[in-house]
Amino acid sequence: MVIEGIITTENSDGSMHIAPIGPHVNSDLTDWVLKPFQTSATFSNLRKSNRCVFHVIDHSLLMAAAVLGLCNEPSPTHQPSEIPMKLRGQIQNLIRAEFDPAIGWVLESSCRVFALSIQYWDVSQPRANAICTLTKQCDRRPCWGWNRASHSILELSILASRVHMLERSVIDDELARHKIIIEKTAGPNEQDAWELLNAQLAISKSPSNGKLG
Amino acid sequence: MVIEGIITTENSDGSMHIAPIGPHVNSDLTDWVLKPFQTSATFSNLRKSNRCVFHVIDHSLLMAAAVLGLCNEPSPTHQPSEIPMKLRGQIQNLIRAEFDPAIGWVLESSCRVFALSIQYWDVSQPRANAICTLTKQCDRRPCWGWNRASHSILELSILASRVHMLERSVIDDELARHKIIIEKTAGPNEQDAWELLNAQLAISKSPSNGKLG
Repeated sequence: MVIEGIITTENSDGSMHIAPIGPHVNSDLTDWVLKPFQTSATFSNLRKSNRCVFHVIDHSLLMAAAVLGLCNEPSPTHQPSEIPMKLRGQIQNLIRAEFDPAIGWVLESSCRVFALSIQYWDVSQPRANAICTLTKQCDRRPCWGWNRASHSILELSILASRVHMLERSVIDDELARHKIIIEKTAGPNEQDAWELLNAQLAISKSPSNGKLG
Repeated sequence: MVIEGIITTENSDGSMHIAPIGPHVNSDLTDWVLKPFQTSATFSNLRKSNRCVFHVIDHSLLMAAAVLGLCNEPSPTHQPSEIPMKLRGQIQNLIRAEFDPAIGWVLESSCRVFALSIQYWDVSQPRANAICTLTKQCDRRPCWGWNRASHSILELSILASRVHMLERSVIDDELARHKIIIEKTAGPNEQDAWELLNAQLAISKSPSNGKLG
């Protein structure tokens, strides 16, 4: 099955790289297979270090920002002017991290942390397979609970990452559909994520702007 | 904002009643408003005892079974023959509970428990408003994490509870849409919930069977 969350890896200079990821796992979260695209920064970093940290999160804004590529350099405070200052500050807070030499980069806003060590690579496909061993697990704080709006944000984030492959009408239908759920059930965090994604998906209306992240 | 989970209340004879519910809460989960329909067993029980237990859960099958009314008497082992024996046993496991006199009925499969005491009722609408005080909170175990299939099951459970108000084509579209996500990302628990909901939503194709739960 697939768990959705955030992966941190180490760049060549030791700094942190943040990306969304959906590893294939078993129910007990003891078996982990990562499937990064070989064109991604995450893949490059993993090939060098063979380790990473997977984070279970409950912040919609963090997921949306990670999918849109707003969590890495240039820092969130220096993002394009379309992103409201309020959201830049919040994203900056959500990506605060500490480096633990035995684990890697750990996001302070995360709920659960899984330190993974890659044991085997299959790079025969554009999407590589990295079979991992779980080296450490830490439960940092309870996840909030099920909120329909945060699930909608997750779906819209996935949509945003595929926007270059989709018809405009599909994007508009999805926005309309999830808007209803978000209006009914969102908190401030999901509303902020909605604002961010909506702005980004609206930009993609321009045919010259095809690919995100 | 709205949190989705399971509420337990006490029947007149002290036994447990289980139902799905979506309380309105603040981000800190300190302010709670329940909105039970006045026709529901949950409402009757709440009016008598003015207390309940809200559970944050991460089991899709528990949510699906609760929405379909399979968690209360007659017990899950004595449900209609359409429900596979394997699922009846699993539902029975998921609804194991202990009665704590200071809290109420606590589901052992839950992640987080919020004991609520009702301070104020507004019963002027078919959906009552019960403003609560949080009397006790307990974090029992970490939630699993974000899984798209479990979110699909939540949406399909909500659909199942509204099936009597919906066009058949809407139900079929939703089943087709969520099937893709479930096939890609589900674990055994979500597959079981899908089987249960799918069977129930298929039954509702018969025009004589309009209302669930």
